[in-house]
Amino acid sequence: MNTVPQPAADVRIVLVGTSHPGNIGSAARAIRTMGLERLVLVAPERFPHPDAVAMAAGADDVLAAATIVGNLAEAVADCALVLGCTARSRRIQLEELSPRAGAARLLDAAGPGAPVALVFGRERTGLENHELQLCHAAVHIPANPDYSSLNLAAAVQVLAYELRVATLERAGLPTGGSDGHREAPASHAQLEGFFDQLGDTLEAIDFHKGRAPESALRKLRRIFLRCGLDEREVRLLRGVLADAQRMARLAGGHGDTR
Amino acid sequence: MNTVPQPAADVRIVLVGTSHPGNIGSAARAIRTMGLERLVLVAPERFPHPDAVAMAAGADDVLAAATIVGNLAEAVADCALVLGCTARSRRIQLEELSPRAGAARLLDAAGPGAPVALVFGRERTGLENHELQLCHAAVHIPANPDYSSLNLAAAVQVLAYELRVATLERAGLPTGGSDGHREAPASHAQLEGFFDQLGDTLEAIDFHKGRAPESALRKLRRIFLRCGLDEREVRLLRGVLADAQRMARLAGGHGDTR
Repeated sequence: MNTVPQPAADVRIVLVGTSHPGNIGSAARAIRTMGLERLVLVAPERFPHPDAVAMAAGADDVLAAATIVGNLAEAVADCALVLGCTARSRRIQLEELSPRAGAARLLDAAGPGAPVALVFGRERTGLENHELQLCHAAVHIPANPDYSSLNLAAAVQVLAYELRVATLERAGLPTGGSDGHREAPASHAQLEGFFDQLGDTLEAIDFHKGRAPESALRKLRRIFLRCGLDEREVRLLRGVLADAQRMARLAGGHGDTR
Repeated sequence: MNTVPQPAADVRIVLVGTSHPGNIGSAARAIRTMGLERLVLVAPERFPHPDAVAMAAGADDVLAAATIVGNLAEAVADCALVLGCTARSRRIQLEELSPRAGAARLLDAAGPGAPVALVFGRERTGLENHELQLCHAAVHIPANPDYSSLNLAAAVQVLAYELRVATLERAGLPTGGSDGHREAPASHAQLEGFFDQLGDTLEAIDFHKGRAPESALRKLRRIFLRCGLDEREVRLLRGVLADAQRMARLAGGHGDTR
């Protein structure tokens, strides 16, 4: 069985102007191990090529299904989101995302009828500026500044891995270890219910003391959204809030038991 | 400049019984791009070898400094923590960690005089049971169950990447994009101070109602440790706790202002 929910199938890996066919094969293997399938090759120097098949090591179905086009514009014409991978931070106008943030952005945008693309440039020279201009944002792998030359397939592996982890997390599936959440992740509605009660509690315990509540609430939302709460954890936190509200009522505050 | 704080330097990458010298070179390149340096080779089939140098592509200093030993026990004899990477989930007695959790565990344990090891097995057969028994836990890359054969260097790249991200996050450095934490991450002492106050607050608002407090506190610690709080966020959360404690005192509870 394939445990990769649909979104990953809508993520297209685009390799631009690859010079070594072996790297195309290694990239095919890398994306296949992470549950991705769609490979688009923009003007590869040598493809098809036996080195590609050799390095694909069983992922040759990805190679066989690969699309070959003449330029990046063709490759991403129908895409809802296009991210360009840059091995090092560059002076570009594009917003720069970490691989983790980039994977999340791609899954947010991907869907049936809304393919998204993750673009990788040439082994030596990366993406040209006119190609970066076709991208909505750049993804930067935080490599060692003293030695940032990731192999093309290695960069594909890192991004494909982040896409896999993000996909599994969204499906509530473990991301490798027994440390994965057992419980179902909290739903949007459950989180909003928690945030409503959190807001009421801050009022009840007079946390704001006349200040506008928005800023503190926004920061608290960011914290709790970041840690990916499961249902049981939301119940636990709401239990704590309920007792704080109860104390506020006993103290003559204006607690809210909603 | 090398932006990798010290812990990474105490992380040892151990390759056991590697058959293809090219994979040793690719692994050297992978760890160097992620700011790691220490490579230990356990009974490599062919090393030194020109293929290793060719695939290292400039990371040959890592190869030159690599240690060669006869068995895994020698390689990890002085290590404070040893994690074994397994490409697929296995029926083993070991705790299984995701790559992310494994990286965090290694950095927690690593330090001057306390090297830690991340162990990778043979290309085809992985680690033997007597080798896994030398590991304190296993790290499992959540590969596609339909096709889980990561290349050895690709597996090294994924784990080295997670170690790099964890190291940068702990140093409060951006992890590639403009989305990294700006604020300094909270220190261990700051987090413990927060957890102490959280415990006092649960007492004050009578959250436990006669139940033993350990279980709830452990679950709450897990939530807040998971989301990687920065200093400002800890101050914000402690401010909320302080007002809850104040309400408890007004309510005639036994609030604690420590």
